[in-house]
Amino acid sequence: MLIGILMGSDSDWGKIKGAAEILDEFEIKYEAKVMSAHRTPELVKEYASNAAEHGLSVLICAAGGAAHLAGVVASHTLLPVIGIPVQTDFCGGLDSLLSTVQMPGDIPVATVGVGSGGARNAGLLAIQILALNNETLKQKLLAFRKNFAQKNEEKNTRLKRIMQ
Amino acid sequence: MLIGILMGSDSDWGKIKGAAEILDEFEIKYEAKVMSAHRTPELVKEYASNAAEHGLSVLICAAGGAAHLAGVVASHTLLPVIGIPVQTDFCGGLDSLLSTVQMPGDIPVATVGVGSGGARNAGLLAIQILALNNETLKQKLLAFRKNFAQKNEEKNTRLKRIMQ
Amino acid sequence: MLIGILMGSDSDWGKIKGAAEILDEFEIKYEAKVMSAHRTPELVKEYASNAAEHGLSVLICAAGGAAHLAGVVASHTLLPVIGIPVQTDFCGGLDSLLSTVQMPGDIPVATVGVGSGGARNAGLLAIQILALNNETLKQKLLAFRKNFAQKNEEKNTRLKRIMQ
Amino acid sequence: MLIGILMGSDSDWGKIKGAAEILDEFEIKYEAKVMSAHRTPELVKEYASNAAEHGLSVLICAAGGAAHLAGVVASHTLLPVIGIPVQTDFCGGLDSLLSTVQMPGDIPVATVGVGSGGARNAGLLAIQILALNNETLKQKLLAFRKNFAQKNEEKNTRLKRIMQ
Amino acid sequence: MLIGILMGSDSDWGKIKGAAEILDEFEIKYEAKVMSAHRTPELVKEYASNAAEHGLSVLICAAGGAAHLAGVVASHTLLPVIGIPVQTDFCGGLDSLLSTVQMPGDIPVATVGVGSGGARNAGLLAIQILALNNETLKQKLLAFRKNFAQKNEEKNTRLKRIMQ
Amino acid sequence: MLIGILMGSDSDWGKIKGAAEILDEFEIKYEAKVMSAHRTPELVKEYASNAAEHGLSVLICAAGGAAHLAGVVASHTLLPVIGIPVQTDFCGGLDSLLSTVQMPGDIPVATVGVGSGGARNAGLLAIQILALNNETLKQKLLAFRKNFAQKNEEKNTRLKRIMQ
Amino acid sequence: MLIGILMGSDSDWGKIKGAAEILDEFEIKYEAKVMSAHRTPELVKEYASNAAEHGLSVLICAAGGAAHLAGVVASHTLLPVIGIPVQTDFCGGLDSLLSTVQMPGDIPVATVGVGSGGARNAGLLAIQILALNNETLKQKLLAFRKNFAQKNEEKNTRLKRIMQ
Amino acid sequence: MLIGILMGSDSDWGKIKGAAEILDEFEIKYEAKVMSAHRTPELVKEYASNAAEHGLSVLICAAGGAAHLAGVVASHTLLPVIGIPVQTDFCGGLDSLLSTVQMPGDIPVATVGVGSGGARNAGLLAIQILALNNETLKQKLLAFRKNFAQKNEEKNTRLKRIMQ
Repeated sequence: MLIGILMGSDSDWGKIKGAAEILDEFEIKYEAKVMSAHRTPELVKEYASNAAEHGLSVLICAAGGAAHLAGVVASHTLLPVIGIPVQTDFCGGLDSLLSTVQMPGDIPVATVGVGSGGARNAGLLAIQILALNNETLKQKLLAFRKNFAQKNEEKNTRLKRIMQ
Repeated sequence: MLIGILMGSDSDWGKIKGAAEILDEFEIKYEAKVMSAHRTPELVKEYASNAAEHGLSVLICAAGGAAHLAGVVASHTLLPVIGIPVQTDFCGGLDSLLSTVQMPGDIPVATVGVGSGGARNAGLLAIQILALNNETLKQKLLAFRKNFAQKNEEKNTRLKRIMQ
Repeated sequence: MLIGILMGSDSDWGKIKGAAEILDEFEIKYEAKVMSAHRTPELVKEYASNAAEHGLSVLICAAGGAAHLAGVVASHTLLPVIGIPVQTDFCGGLDSLLSTVQMPGDIPVATVGVGSGGARNAGLLAIQILALNNETLKQKLLAFRKNFAQKNEEKNTRLKRIMQ
Repeated sequence: MLIGILMGSDSDWGKIKGAAEILDEFEIKYEAKVMSAHRTPELVKEYASNAAEHGLSVLICAAGGAAHLAGVVASHTLLPVIGIPVQTDFCGGLDSLLSTVQMPGDIPVATVGVGSGGARNAGLLAIQILALNNETLKQKLLAFRKNFAQKNEEKNTRLKRIMQ
Repeated sequence: MLIGILMGSDSDWGKIKGAAEILDEFEIKYEAKVMSAHRTPELVKEYASNAAEHGLSVLICAAGGAAHLAGVVASHTLLPVIGIPVQTDFCGGLDSLLSTVQMPGDIPVATVGVGSGGARNAGLLAIQILALNNETLKQKLLAFRKNFAQKNEEKNTRLKRIMQ
Repeated sequence: MLIGILMGSDSDWGKIKGAAEILDEFEIKYEAKVMSAHRTPELVKEYASNAAEHGLSVLICAAGGAAHLAGVVASHTLLPVIGIPVQTDFCGGLDSLLSTVQMPGDIPVATVGVGSGGARNAGLLAIQILALNNETLKQKLLAFRKNFAQKNEEKNTRLKRIMQ
Repeated sequence: MLIGILMGSDSDWGKIKGAAEILDEFEIKYEAKVMSAHRTPELVKEYASNAAEHGLSVLICAAGGAAHLAGVVASHTLLPVIGIPVQTDFCGGLDSLLSTVQMPGDIPVATVGVGSGGARNAGLLAIQILALNNETLKQKLLAFRKNFAQKNEEKNTRLKRIMQ
Repeated sequence: MLIGILMGSDSDWGKIKGAAEILDEFEIKYEAKVMSAHRTPELVKEYASNAAEHGLSVLICAAGGAAHLAGVVASHTLLPVIGIPVQTDFCGGLDSLLSTVQMPGDIPVATVGVGSGGARNAGLLAIQILALNNETLKQKLLAFRKNFAQKNEEKNTRLKRIMQ
């Protein structure tokens, strides 16, 4: 079980590392790589078309602006591709969102939200996909979700403190 | 292998049936149900929280406007949830898209594009997820993609005819 | 007379406390709770479906992004539900606004504006609803509005000072 | 119990009559009037400032474009004011929505969605407000909601027919 | 020749004072007032409906969010009304712009741009209107425009310095 | 008193003739011309820079898309320039609106709304500007506005008929 | 001198044929091909990377939605690439526009407008580029532009007829 | 080979200097000038209509808001005109983008993206156009692109450092 986290630029890392953090939390291996659909198309093609053979299960692709990375990766692999639209100064990332999600029929990209919650969800979505055939992961996900109730109580405690 | 296709209203069917058609093409079973996150929340909860037990693998949820169906379903299941933002008269479905994709961290929805291509891609994404552990499906997907080249030639033939 | 103020996260408090402040000003009791439509759906359901019985009259729900809290709460109660779309980095909260206001027919959410004025208005709207059957509140609202003229004069005085 | 339905133009009626239809269904009286915040400001002021005295409980205001009607009405009454942003050719009614919902602090407008669902919800919101102090209405609302399950079954039956 | 500069809040002054500055530059008298279409509708009506009689020629109205001030003022006067949409955190002021400019037929508002250039242009537009019947102003405007060439040269000089 | 109505294309006439109709109603002369900021810049410059001399008082400019006509005309004349953003298929004319209204400081364009109401308002704004120094026009405007009350009654009568 | 016109689907032809028509008018040869950045990435790569060698000078690429074609083509060639964002039902093509124009630094796409004018301009831009080193073309462009004045007169004649 | 870089204001330089930097890197001469379509239309006309004669090959025009500079320049020259939409506080530059790119048929502007990548791409696009007839430039472009692979490796090295 190996997840690929691809990004257009190393400067995106700060905005998308939530994907890696949740994978760490679930003890799932991943490899993070910088590659650009436009500057290094050969690299992208090579990586994507060999990903399954190299043991990768799901590819997470983060890009901003005219964000083509996820779509181009998806065109070279049968693995599920998750797209993270990176936040930009243009309407907060509307450009990244639309270029990632509005894929034409035949080549899907599983798009998550713009922002830090989106990156975390990209990781979780990969985990939920893997858990379909992995009982241990399923149990971990169950535990993860059961924990929400307690975390919520802690938030309520914090809220009471703030409100005083 | 069973896919659930959920929609807020039977009137959405025309816009999302592309999801079912591609599943038919790949001979994957699915069940289609109308249920509403707002009008029948109990039904949604019951369906979503028992989906895994009932043999479902992936849930595809289509809704428009303040499209909460995918998010609410995702909150009740560990299965991967794919959201189809149904086209509306409001900016072509910007409301559906944002209410589906901008999920807060912890509960991901794999969102596809607004429009008929999006529905088809929802079905294909489900297939790609299932294919991770199904060699037959993987082979079918390969054949499906290999077919693109020939279909493209046909499009070029049609184009030449139109251009004359 | 008790108002519920629900929010998806304690970190939203700073953006929505205006709702509580105006309730304080009118000496109306409220309880503020963190609960998430996605992380703690059971809690939301339980709270919302018992709210009337527990003496609550109006529920104010604040959430950001794919803001489903108000809609999900509204699906579990007959009480009027007021939605505050919390400001985000995505177009200033366009995502929160559309996911809160664009509810399908049958389950209304009374939506106020994005931003601090919106939160204050959520509180005032609750007060105006309660005042329909409460003469004291009505008189307080009248006094509150009569005060606008004087406050406006003070603003004019401040303006003159700034302009010099 | 009397509801006022105000609209900027009689040509809006087709888009907002859903508000009246649901009031009819609940046997709640309403009066529908055309008046314009810009063309007949005196009329609006007179109507709004005397509405409570004339036995009105809630005012529903529908307008499109720079939709000021709900806000101007709200400035002249303490009654809850519900705003319906009428659909336009400009981004499907983004102009109507923003001019209705983005009210500055102190004068709230309870805004519902753009489109036919929004108009229906405006009526329902008024009913839910009235039901706070009306047991009969509360029972009718309960019955109305209980009916959703059966209506949903009918939709599923229709869906099955369409899908064959 | 007297211009009225009206604003919803004294806190808007920083964003709109460009209107006053250009009037100062052209030595045209103005009075600046805070008044709110929603909080002090009577004041607005009184001011607007008596403005012509009080010697005012053009009214400049600045407001943000659901910016109704210009429209409401215009409904009470035959004087030309210029609307400045004040910048907000919501898409940079899209809400202010649409609520100001999208006026229904019969009551026009002469809208300028969002931002500091817009405020300056509101002042200039008032001047251009007054200059239609004022030869001195016309000459000043001519001189003002002739100055653009020299200012442009200065900008080129500055640019050369920056570029080195 | 002569108004110029300029448009980028004769195909825009249907969308903007409301400006001419209201001028006809007030018996104000106008001349309508097709000229393009991009295809015939010389013509635009010549017309705009001689407009005052040729007896024109106000220039109304209609254009769509990257709508530069009003701005370019304004750069060649001291007369007040009114911009009508012509409706397009792109978000209903958001492109036309922003290219017309967002003028940089120093060269104002008095922008009216997108759509048929906007064109009518362009004509009315011109009339209100002319009325500043024309008592007859002022009286006509007063009569025009007094008529609103009766027209509103007619709308109410129509509404009653529709509602039956 | 050969221009390539590439499109994601033959169904786009109706929306973009304006590019071909203007090339025909200038007697410039072109070849039109259907190929998809996502369905036939190999074909795109092969075509784009050999385009210069095959005698092509400029590549015009039209695509809609998450429109990656122009960007992907640009990543495989040093020839100037012109992108036509094809109109869609989503905000009139906002998705196509942003995915085409918001390219990250290093790989430019010369983007024209959404709509039929954009397609025509794509062809003209290619011609203007070729004319840089082709005196005949330059003369034709001059003649083409000189013709604008006469066409404008014809439009004025038509306008007069319509206005009567 | 000389490129013109025109901008509406020297204050834009910081946002667009990427165009100049890449030209420097390729040792291509350019001249940078401030001129405004609205404040100095004569200067713009003179510069643009003589540009070819003065040895210029491509004109890069940067402007923000109602960004008319590129369009107006294009109306006065047959040279290819590249438009840089300068970032603004209004939706991050949506106004600049639409006023630059949505040109009506007959006068194209080759538009690049909003933001620093866009400016760099404007320079590169000019270079790619010049390289059509300049073998040395073509070789430099090839070398420039070959360098991407190594730069990408460096980014991966940096990423590994950040991730530790």
